[in-house]
Formats: sequence, structure tokens, C-alpha cells
Amino acid sequence: MTSNPSNVMALTSNTSSKKETVAIFGTGDFGRALAHKMIQSGYAVVFGSRQAQISSLIPKGAEVLSHTEAAQKAAIIIIAIPRQHYNFLLPLAEVLHGKVLVDVSNNLKLNQYPQSNAEYLAELIPGAKVVKAFNTVSAWALQSGTLDASRQVFVCGDDKKAKQMVMDIVRALGLTPLDQGSLLAAQEIENYPLQLFPMWKFPILLSLGLTAFFFFYCLIRDVIYPYVNEKKDVSFFIAISIANRICPTMALILLALVYLPGVLAAIIQLYRGTKYSRFPDWLDKWMLCRKQLGLVALAFAFLHVLYTLIIPIRSYVRWRINSRVISQVLNNRTDPLDNTSAWLSDSYLALGILGFFLFVLLGITSLPSVSNSVNWREFRFVQSKLGYLTLILCTAHTLVYGGKWFLYASSYRWYLPSVYMLSLIVPCIVLVVKFVLVFPCLDKPLTRIRQGWERNPQYSE
Amino acid sequence: MTSNPSNVMALTSNTSSKKETVAIFGTGDFGRALAHKMIQSGYAVVFGSRQAQISSLIPKGAEVLSHTEAAQKAAIIIIAIPRQHYNFLLPLAEVLHGKVLVDVSNNLKLNQYPQSNAEYLAELIPGAKVVKAFNTVSAWALQSGTLDASRQVFVCGDDKKAKQMVMDIVRALGLTPLDQGSLLAAQEIENYPLQLFPMWKFPILLSLGLTAFFFFYCLIRDVIYPYVNEKKDVSFFIAISIANRICPTMALILLALVYLPGVLAAIIQLYRGTKYSRFPDWLDKWMLCRKQLGLVALAFAFLHVLYTLIIPIRSYVRWRINSRVISQVLNNRTDPLDNTSAWLSDSYLALGILGFFLFVLLGITSLPSVSNSVNWREFRFVQSKLGYLTLILCTAHTLVYGGKWFLYASSYRWYLPSVYMLSLIVPCIVLVVKFVLVFPCLDKPLTRIRQGWERNPQYSE
Amino acid sequence: MTSNPSNVMALTSNTSSKKETVAIFGTGDFGRALAHKMIQSGYAVVFGSRQAQISSLIPKGAEVLSHTEAAQKAAIIIIAIPRQHYNFLLPLAEVLHGKVLVDVSNNLKLNQYPQSNAEYLAELIPGAKVVKAFNTVSAWALQSGTLDASRQVFVCGDDKKAKQMVMDIVRALGLTPLDQGSLLAAQEIENYPLQLFPMWKFPILLSLGLTAFFFFYCLIRDVIYPYVNEKKDVSFFIAISIANRICPTMALILLALVYLPGVLAAIIQLYRGTKYSRFPDWLDKWMLCRKQLGLVALAFAFLHVLYTLIIPIRSYVRWRINSRVISQVLNNRTDPLDNTSAWLSDSYLALGILGFFLFVLLGITSLPSVSNSVNWREFRFVQSKLGYLTLILCTAHTLVYGGKWFLYASSYRWYLPSVYMLSLIVPCIVLVVKFVLVFPCLDKPLTRIRQGWERNPQYSE
Repeated sequence: MTSNPSNVMALTSNTSSKKETVAIFGTGDFGRALAHKMIQSGYAVVFGSRQAQISSLIPKGAEVLSHTEAAQKAAIIIIAIPRQHYNFLLPLAEVLHGKVLVDVSNNLKLNQYPQSNAEYLAELIPGAKVVKAFNTVSAWALQSGTLDASRQVFVCGDDKKAKQMVMDIVRALGLTPLDQGSLLAAQEIENYPLQLFPMWKFPILLSLGLTAFFFFYCLIRDVIYPYVNEKKDVSFFIAISIANRICPTMALILLALVYLPGVLAAIIQLYRGTKYSRFPDWLDKWMLCRKQLGLVALAFAFLHVLYTLIIPIRSYVRWRINSRVISQVLNNRTDPLDNTSAWLSDSYLALGILGFFLFVLLGITSLPSVSNSVNWREFRFVQSKLGYLTLILCTAHTLVYGGKWFLYASSYRWYLPSVYMLSLIVPCIVLVVKFVLVFPCLDKPLTRIRQGWERNPQYSE
Repeated sequence: MTSNPSNVMALTSNTSSKKETVAIFGTGDFGRALAHKMIQSGYAVVFGSRQAQISSLIPKGAEVLSHTEAAQKAAIIIIAIPRQHYNFLLPLAEVLHGKVLVDVSNNLKLNQYPQSNAEYLAELIPGAKVVKAFNTVSAWALQSGTLDASRQVFVCGDDKKAKQMVMDIVRALGLTPLDQGSLLAAQEIENYPLQLFPMWKFPILLSLGLTAFFFFYCLIRDVIYPYVNEKKDVSFFIAISIANRICPTMALILLALVYLPGVLAAIIQLYRGTKYSRFPDWLDKWMLCRKQLGLVALAFAFLHVLYTLIIPIRSYVRWRINSRVISQVLNNRTDPLDNTSAWLSDSYLALGILGFFLFVLLGITSLPSVSNSVNWREFRFVQSKLGYLTLILCTAHTLVYGGKWFLYASSYRWYLPSVYMLSLIVPCIVLVVKFVLVFPCLDKPLTRIRQGWERNPQYSE
Repeated sequence: MTSNPSNVMALTSNTSSKKETVAIFGTGDFGRALAHKMIQSGYAVVFGSRQAQISSLIPKGAEVLSHTEAAQKAAIIIIAIPRQHYNFLLPLAEVLHGKVLVDVSNNLKLNQYPQSNAEYLAELIPGAKVVKAFNTVSAWALQSGTLDASRQVFVCGDDKKAKQMVMDIVRALGLTPLDQGSLLAAQEIENYPLQLFPMWKFPILLSLGLTAFFFFYCLIRDVIYPYVNEKKDVSFFIAISIANRICPTMALILLALVYLPGVLAAIIQLYRGTKYSRFPDWLDKWMLCRKQLGLVALAFAFLHVLYTLIIPIRSYVRWRINSRVISQVLNNRTDPLDNTSAWLSDSYLALGILGFFLFVLLGITSLPSVSNSVNWREFRFVQSKLGYLTLILCTAHTLVYGGKWFLYASSYRWYLPSVYMLSLIVPCIVLVVKFVLVFPCLDKPLTRIRQGWERNPQYSE
């Protein structure tokens, strides 16, 4: 969106002010990229290398010395070499005593070693102050200045002053340091860049499973049944008709699953009479991925809208409408406008539009930059009040849509009810329970419990 | 979107470095959550409590002492107790002398007390340095690590050093401190978490009022009039037809209202010959909520698009089209293609699409993270140039749509003009005045005034 | 979205703590706005002015002194006067010795002077420490508190301590300082606020050029050809039919152009056997504007979706469908459902919907706040894996759509192939080459090269 002027920033000139010197061990990609950025930001950089010669790739302005000489020149030494080679530092233990060693390494797999690289380094050189940092930043991003992915640099270490020094460098490079506590956090920090959407795993697996189930369910009801019973080949239903039956079903069920854990938590709290006992683990995990569940639901709703809007363009639909008109004409018959069906059709469409609109609004407020600019009261208002309104509208949309078919025998093919009936189970349960919980006789004690009141208090101040 | 590694971060280990000690008075939810987070970030925490016993809820690693002992151990004391109990601090005044007291309290209502809690605290313990902070953060968010709502911590206080110390803690916890000046700002800061979209109040009330007005207007014209005059029951128009008349009207009027204050301000500046006299209050307020007005307008435009796109799916529309075809056939008549109406229909649709596209673009650039990454020139280009283009396209869309009906007598039912005629009044005024203001004879003096020139200068440097 | 409490923040009270004093030379708009904000944040402000009188516009709490007196009172002096008047500082050189001078000036044109204003200032007063800052912030934004556009303040200077002092002030005002290195960076920083979407220039010019080309191409094929050959006036095709042919074409070509440079880079790296030689300049530039190209492509795809969805509302389309029905009826003929064409129509619509859905997902993840909250592995997964899937789906959508027409002679009017055939050239090339590159015999060496392996190593550690 913007061109960062630092991309093309000039190297620092000779200035009167004394610049801090930082040593970098290792002249690989990352070490060089970091050196490049540091020189831009006014640091003096010396490389520690086995052969003290200047390669063409070393950024201009950086010196290349032996490891010992480099270490003597700087208070902060960045260890930009792989963990396997850390033991070459052992002979340097004396010169590294009291220095700040910055471990920037990453592993190839989650929990590759029992001990984090930074802790291993701290064990090797006990006299040094080890700080973990910079492992979340890529060399390419540093060099090109296009820090599209995270600018956050997680920093941890046991020595507070050493950590502060490293965080100052992070800030000077235009990145955002985040203090993660002691070196015990290093394992977490080293695992972070290896993660692939960990919070999304459950919602996506769940929706894949449900989607597969509903696909086969619809396949049986809508393609195989007519083929067996009427010898009609409607296999082309798979592309759109069935997809447009799965998407709204998934959207509604997932949206209801966003609000189900809150309702369960309320019941548990009411039953236990306190908020100070932990929820079961599965409920905790479920509550933490509600946002992701909601966004997957929104994705399905978005697909449902697109699938619905292109209905009139489908050649099958055009053919069906035309053949109905033609049959009317040939039978010399003009159907009058059915006011009830006009009402039903218009109101389920209107409910769907309003529901989708609120759903999109919920999605927008869950964008990090938007949710960061609202306070807690506003955030809860949107996610809870507007969220329930969305759920009510979407459930009503489905109810009105399917209303008249509930009682038709033709809706049950091979005793299988239509998919939209299945989709209504969870949302209706959530709405009914929530409706019950809103009654004062339950709402009042719940509010008191959430303010810290306990039925059987365990401690008091 | 991402899992913050700090959620599962390890508690700090015994380290050689000396950790700063922070005292917390009050072992309620918030005090404990704050302690938990601080211990993670490497602080030593002591609780000051009436009974010096360790409750199971106190985070591991925290000591519980008497208030006096706790206060003696730390330079910074966090007062995590309700305002009503502040007076219990009076006997501690001596030991609190010179300490930094952090007021984290919130009230239940806006301006509940004439004096902010922090100022009251400063008055109680005049020897202490009171800093207001952390009141915008929720205990639940601190503990679960899901800081979806604001990470911003507003900080204020009269002592700059004390403020700096507190802001360092805020930063260490991974939050963003925002210095708000002296303790006089505490009232504002305490009101902040109680606000519910204060900037949105006026735009939303305005649009609710206008929506209600247009709803009844349309109800009379489109439902009651045909019922009275032709005994036709078209009450189902309410769900979609009328909604789709209100939405575009609202979108256009609100969009024009975004640009009206700018035009008024230009006229006032031209008339007064200076930019250094304040605008009337209502104009100032109006200008500050232009973004919100624009976003509400975009919401209406979005609804209008959805309502329009589902038109061909409505059973009423299908019936109308079919019955027209059938009547043509029965009368053995084939209407030829009317080139003019094809042009009109296509061009008003095209204008609407382009207008909506630019409108969405404007909406995207007003997302905080996007508007933060453009410079002022770019922001003004988008919001002013693209904004006016959007207004022109949307007005043209409405003009072309309704063009041919302006002169038909049938457009006036009970002397009420159609809604789209009403919707054109404000946008046309804005565009005409803006067009006049673009002429050099007015544009040149206006530009000079905006650069600081005054017709009757009051002062000169 | 939020009301910043600082808008209405109270001025600082008399406090016991000593406040830092900042001098501001120049009482123009920007100087006053800065003073206003600084006083709010607890600084003492003195203005240096030629006439030491208090104008009504000077914020309350600020003193107005002579330049010399003001300079003596403060360690930091903000030079808020235009560059042309800098030479009036010459007589003050002695009193300015050792002071931090903050250059906040902007120019009217890019590279207006051969030397940046800050460097010119440093040359004029060699004894002072010049720091460039605040030029990206507008006076209006400072005063109204609505910092919608960038809160980033680029800071550069040769003296590290001076820079640090200025960055502390920036932070205290609630803005984000970004250290850009030495004073050599000042030129870049002064150019920054004058830029108008520099990264977007190439993508937008390219798409304008291609759009114009395709417009005339379609005009000839779809409007002029039928007019010449069949005397049919279908000029109204311009508004929607042709627009809806250009938009998908542009979207597909631009999307392919996002992935073409990556494929070219891979070929170059394989050919050279190293990643350490620079790419040609055009390729570097191309790679840096891939995000912008992709977003322009998404805009065209969005327009294509809107143009497609309103098809059934167009009066021309309604007329065409109706006349087809009528002709069927009059000929007493009922066309049976063509299963193949139902499959084709449904599957190209489904492919289009899925492709657009993924495209929107890509767009959302390129929002700054979203891309900031994912790690590199996740970012690359989305932009590369999902991106290629999008390209495959969109190409398949076009192929299925046009499939049956490829061989019809009627598709070639005046030997001109249909536009969608042209649109397929680039995407098909990209996909074929990418497919070849995925084979292990090429993928393995490429991966090794990207990890730093060189066929003919130039240096080794």
C-alpha cells in the first residue's frame, strides 16, 4: 500500500556521534540481511568469520574479523549460525563472558530438539547473557523492506538489561519487540514460525468433515434417489444445486457452534455456582477458536450468496422457467399471483439479506485493525448482541424458506429429511437455551456469578 | 488469526538478574490477571491483602503480604480495588509517600463521580505519584491472551518519571501505552471503556430517522395508494420492493451529507476571508463524523446491491415476467427490442456498478490498517477525488434510472413525488455548489485562505 | 471507529515534576498544532518569534519569546519555518551550538532542491545536531486528533542521541517513530508525503493500457462487425456486455502476471545455478509490485462478478429470453433439457464462484493488519499455494466457459479470435511452466539453490 522509504535508504555517513557496535557471527543470508539493516539504522557491524576476508556479499560498511576480535569489539553478539555448529563457540567462552548473545536460529520442525536452541546456547556458554530474538523475521523481508508478514519480534531472556538492549535494536530497525519473559519461552518462540494456522485447524477439519457428510447425504437424496426412482439423470446438480444446499447448512451450523460454548459455559457456571473453577479443556479450546469458527461460517455464507445470486443465469433454471411458461401457454392457462407465496418468497429473501449483512459486519469487526480500535464494551456489543441477532435472522431465513415443506411427505426421500431440517437443529437449540437463560430468574444469579459472587465461596478477602 | 505464543508462555525461572518488584493491592480478578501477566514478563509480584494467606487463585510465584509490607517492597503499587474502598489507604499514607500508585479502576456509568478516581486517589494520598493506566484492558483478555479488543493502554499522570515507569511495564506486557498527558485526562480515560460507539451515535440516529420517514412515505405511495385506488393488495412489497427503495435513497443522501459540510466550510471560509476563526459547533461535529456517515451510507449501498441482485429470484418478479410473456403470446404479438430502453437500462446498471465499486474502495481505505499505511496526500486523494467521483456516479445512476419518469403524471400519487426524486435533492445541491467552487475565481482565494492568507489579518509574524 | 480521548484532553496542570522544555521557531499552523499537542503531553513549549507578543492563536500555556531567548531555554528546537527563511538562523549559530534542531519542513515538489532541507540546515548550522522528523504528519490531524492517515513519523539524523530524544517526543505524542538512519535519508523522507501511490503506478498504467486495447478490440468485434455485416445496432453493448468481457480478461491476465515473475526468477536461478546474483532490474521492480497487481486484478474480478450478476435484470436480456420463449411457443416446440450444456453452464459458474472466493480470501490476507498477524510460513502458504489454486480455478473457469467455441469458425470475426482466447495465453503459460518446475528433477536443485547452494560457488565460509 505504501513504499517504505527505508528500502532505498542511504547507508550511514561518517558522523561525529559514536555508534554502538554489534557483532554478527555467521555470514549467511540472515546475518548479512541483519547487518545490512543495522548499518542503515546507524549501527557499526563487525562480522565474526573463520576467514577474515571480505566477500562481495558482505554489506558495505561492515568489517570482517576473526570471531575473537569481533566478540571483543561488541557488547552484543548475534549468533547467526545453525544450532549444529554452536559447539564451535566453546573455545570462545572466555571472551564471550558477560556478553549479550542473541540467538536468532530457527528449526525445521516443531519441537525438533527437547531443549530450545537458546537454552542450549545458554548452557554451552553459561557466562553469557542469552536473548532469543529475530527468529520470526525473514532475511528476504529484511533486505527488500517489504515486511508484509509480521513485524513483531518476540524477545525472551533471563537478563532484563540484556533483553532491553536487544529490544532497543529491534525498535531501531523499525520492528516491534514483544517481551515474552524468561528463556523458558524460547521453545514457544522457536515453534512460532513453524506453525501453520494452529487456531484454524479445528474449525477447518470440522467443516471439512461436515461438508463431506452433507455432500454424500445430498448426493443420495437429490441425485441417486431421482435416478433410482425416476430414471432421471440430474448429476449436474452436484456443481451448484448441491453446493448451494451444503453452504447455507454449514454456515448456519457453524454460526450456531460459535454461540453454543457460551451457552454451555453459562450452564456450567450456574450449576457450579462459581466462575472460579476451570471449564473442561474441550470447552476452553472451543471458546478460543470461536472467532475462527465464525469466519469459516462467514465464508460458507458468502459462497451461499454467490451460488444463490447466479441461479437465474444457470441454463437449467432458464430452461425450467421457460418450459413452465410454455406449458402454461399451451394449456391456455394463466396462473394468478399467489399472494402468500409472494410474501413467503420475499420475506425469506429479505431475512437472508439482513442476516448476511450483519454477518459481514461481524466479519469486518473481527479484522485485527478494527477490533483493536474499539473498546471492550463495543467489542462485546458487536460480537454478542449483533451476533445473536445474526443467528436469529439466519435461523428465521431457513425456517421461512423451508416452512411449508416440513409436513410434506415428499420431503422425506428414503426417510431422509431435507438437509435444511438438519441444519436447524443446532441453531434452534442454542436460541432456545439462550432464550431461557435471558429470564431474570437465571440471568440475575449468572450476572452475579460473573461479577465474582460464589454460591460456596472458597476464600474471601 | 494467529496464536500468540504468550498464551502458553512459561512462568519465569529463577534467574540471576534482579527483577523489578511490583505490588498489587487487591486480589480480585483484575489484580490476579495482571499479576499473572507480569510474572510471565519477568516481574516479581507481591500482593497486599488484609489476610496474608495464599489463596488457590493467586498466581504461582506471587507473594501475599500485608498492605504495609507489600508497599515497602515495591516502588510501583497497583491499586486494584474499587474506588469506594480507597479510603482504607489513608492509614498507609506514610509508607506510600513517594511511591508510584497506579489507578486501574473503572466506573459503572459515564461521569459517575464529579472527580475522576485517579484524581480522588491523588487527593487522598498527596505524597504519592498517581498514574492512571490499564483501565481499558479486561481481566479476561489478559489471562486468555486473546487481546482482540484494544491493546492500547491510555496512561496519564502528573509525574513524568512515574508515567515512564508505568509505560515501561505496559510495553513489557506486550501492550501499547499511549501517553494522554496530565492527571486531568483521567476522567476521559475512565469514561473511554464505558462508551458505546460515541462517534456513531449521530449517523445512526440520523439514518434511523430518515429510514422511518422514507418507510412510511413509501408505504403510503406504494402499498396504501394502490389498495385504496385499485383494491390491489401488494403488502408483500414491504419486504423487498420498499426496502430496495429506501436503501439506495439513504445511501445517496448520506453520501451527499458526507460532502456537504466540506462545501459549507468552504463557503464560510470564503465569506469570512480567513481559516482562523472557528466553525460553528454543529459543523465541527458534523465534519468529525463524516467517516461514520460514509460507512453507514456504504452499508445501505451494500444492502441495495443485494436487494437488487435477488430481484430475478423473487417469485413475484418471475410471475410478472411470465405473465407478460404469456399475454404477448396470447395476443400473438412479439415486442421488438427497444434500443433506447436497452441503452438506458444498461447504462444505469453500469453507472451503479461503477459507483458501488468506488464506494467499496473508499470503505476499504477507511479501514484503520489501510489508512495508516498511506500518506496524507494519498488519503486526501482517495477520500476527496474518488469520493466526489463516487457521488457523481451514484447521482448519475439515480438520474438515468428515473430519468423518463420525471415528467409522467403517474409518478405523482396523491401529489407525492417518487422517493428517488427526493433522494436527488441533497446530492444535486452538493454537486452544483462544488462545481461552482471549482471555478478559478472562487478556487484561487479559497486555496490562499487555506494556506493561511487572511483578508483582514488579525496578527502577523 | 473510536474516539481518541486525546481530542478533548485537558491541558496539563501545574505539577511538581519538571517538564522538558521544547522551543518552536515559527508560529505558523504546524508550529502551533505541534505546540498544542506537546503541551497536552506534558511538555513546556516556548515559541521563538520575531515579535514577542502573544497572538490569540498561540495555544494556552506556551510562552512567546525572541528566537535567542527561546533557544537558550530548550535543548530541542523545532524549526517550523519554510526552507527559504532558514538563513535567518545564521546569526543565531552560536546559541544553537550543540542544540538539537528538528527539521519538520516539506517541499511542494518531489526533489525540489538538489539537497534535502535537513541537510541544508545541517550545513548552515554545523554546530547543531539536525534531526529530520514530523514532516509526514499534518497540522490538521494533530489538532483534531483524527490521525486517520499515517501515525508513522520517519526520523533520521546523524547524531544518535539527538535522534533518540526526538523519537521520545514522537512516542509521547502518541505517534510511532521509525528510525530511518543517517541524515542522508532526509531526501527520501521529504519526498514521502509528496508521493501518490508510487507502487501502484505501474499496475494501474498497465491495466489502463490493456483495458483500452481490449475495449477497442471488443468494439470492433462486437459492435462494428455486426453493424457492418448485419446492419444491427448493438451499441448499447458498450455499457455492460463489453465491460463484462474486458473485466474478466483483465482479472485473469493480471492475476497471471502476479505469478509470472516468480516463475521467471526460478528459471533464472536454475540457469545461473545461484541465488546470489541480482535479478535484472525490471524483474526486481515487477516482483515488488506483485501485491498491487493482484489487488488490481481482484478489482476487475469484483467488477466482473457484479456485471455478471445483474445480467438477468438487463432489459435486453429479458427481451432476448422472452422472444426465445415466444418463438418456441409460436413454433409449437418445446426444447428438452440439454444435460451437457446444463453441466457446462453449472460447472463454469461453480469454478468462477470458487475462484472468486479464493481471490477475495487472498485480498483479505493482504490487508496490512491481517498480514501483520500471520507468520512467514502462513503468509507464503496463502499467497503461493492458495494463489496458484485461484489461478488454476479462474483459468479453468474461462476454459470451460469458452470450451465449445474454440473450434467454431463463427468465433473468428475478421480473423480476430474472441477476447477470452487472448486472456488465456498468459495464465496457461504460467501454469504450464510452473507445472514443469514442480517436477523433482527441477524442483530439487531449485530448493537447494534457494537454501544457499551454488553450482559455481564464489565464496565459502
